Amino acid sequence: MTEHPDLAGLQRRLTEFAAARNWQPYHTPKNLASALSVEAAELVEIFQWLTPDESAAVMSDPSTAHRVTDEVADVLAYLLQFCEALGIDPLAALAAKIERNEGRFPVPGSGKHPEA
Amino acid sequence: MTEHPDLAGLQRRLTEFAAARNWQPYHTPKNLASALSVEAAELVEIFQWLTPDESAAVMSDPSTAHRVTDEVADVLAYLLQFCEALGIDPLAALAAKIERNEGRFPVPGSGKHPEA
Amino acid sequence: MTEHPDLAGLQRRLTEFAAARNWQPYHTPKNLASALSVEAAELVEIFQWLTPDESAAVMSDPSTAHRVTDEVADVLAYLLQFCEALGIDPLAALAAKIERNEGRFPVPGSGKHPEA
Amino acid sequence: MTEHPDLAGLQRRLTEFAAARNWQPYHTPKNLASALSVEAAELVEIFQWLTPDESAAVMSDPSTAHRVTDEVADVLAYLLQFCEALGIDPLAALAAKIERNEGRFPVPGSGKHPEA
Repeated sequence: MTEHPDLAGLQRRLTEFAAARNWQPYHTPKNLASALSVEAAELVEIFQWLTPDESAAVMSDPSTAHRVTDEVADVLAYLLQFCEALGIDPLAALAAKIERNEGRFPVPGSGKHPEA
Repeated sequence: MTEHPDLAGLQRRLTEFAAARNWQPYHTPKNLASALSVEAAELVEIFQWLTPDESAAVMSDPSTAHRVTDEVADVLAYLLQFCEALGIDPLAALAAKIERNEGRFPVPGSGKHPEA
Repeated sequence: MTEHPDLAGLQRRLTEFAAARNWQPYHTPKNLASALSVEAAELVEIFQWLTPDESAAVMSDPSTAHRVTDEVADVLAYLLQFCEALGIDPLAALAAKIERNEGRFPVPGSGKHPEA
Repeated sequence: MTEHPDLAGLQRRLTEFAAARNWQPYHTPKNLASALSVEAAELVEIFQWLTPDESAAVMSDPSTAHRVTDEVADVLAYLLQFCEALGIDPLAALAAKIERNEGRFPVPGSGKHPEA
């Protein structure tokens, strides 16, 4: 790992990883979406009993920091595999979404979270 | 959008977007992890009654394709904001995870999904 | 509804409801578990940007109270249908779990949540 | 356990259990909703790589059967504690929902799942 990994390269490595282990039959979009949601829940689990302040300090404990980072990797891994299975470009999807949101949520906000 | 967006640039735009609307007080790591899991569930919802074959064909219906792509964007948006809040590099996290998994799951697999 | 509904009676009505609409082919345990998790996420969504204090006051707004109560019903509905599909008695399962937990978490606790 | 447990009795035992361990400060509605969704995801995890047929047969393996039953108990436990915290009657909520759904989904269905 001499240079910083890029998203497309990681996505390719995940695809090769699953192919080499014959996991593709399990990797239907339906199953990958479930797996993504399970990993997201494992991230939530770390925070479920914490106060907002405690939640902001999780990275100061090395073992919790490792656990959080690991769950982030799992969420991203399944998101990329899901996108690969369906031919979705996640970066283009997000760019388009941000542009739409700039229209939906004009700037002079009151501070009240409009998504709530 | 003349060139392809990159992850770091999108993460920056999301941060500016939230800051311009004074949403940071809501964006604790705990809340962002919850929001991420909610968006992942909205992706699952699209697939919940589909057979494996139907799930592989979701992109052939333009309106479902749009909905799936939109949820992918939402999941990625909250994942990037979560990482920004805690100083996590998602690409480095995933690269490290792939390397660990190459040790945990040696290649000559039987075809049975070992994560199951 | 002259008397208070009981769990077994509601479970029966849910089974008849699904059968009358020919929904059983969709109601595999796998799909019902997904649907349960989607409904649980819809409950989380109501709380995702709230402070702990705001979350304790959700029932004082009639429209939010209705939404919360409705999601509770959805979670319970899918849980009962899941149990029906697999022949699980949810009350016996919970009674057994409480007994095990009384052994796992002895009373003179320090106030720190041991599940965390 | 000489007689079959009832929902109200189990809910009372859960409340006493948490009170005896001073867990109430952690049991905000927001946190309980998160915990509920995490347990629902643990149920999903059991099924995530299974085919529909395999998912229907999970109870034939004693260790998987125990795991499934245990997760059902956890989901129900958090649902009851959530309802207790907010003063919601889950059985009345479900009875009302079934009545509304009988209006929303008239019987002579085509077999296509209208919730999808």
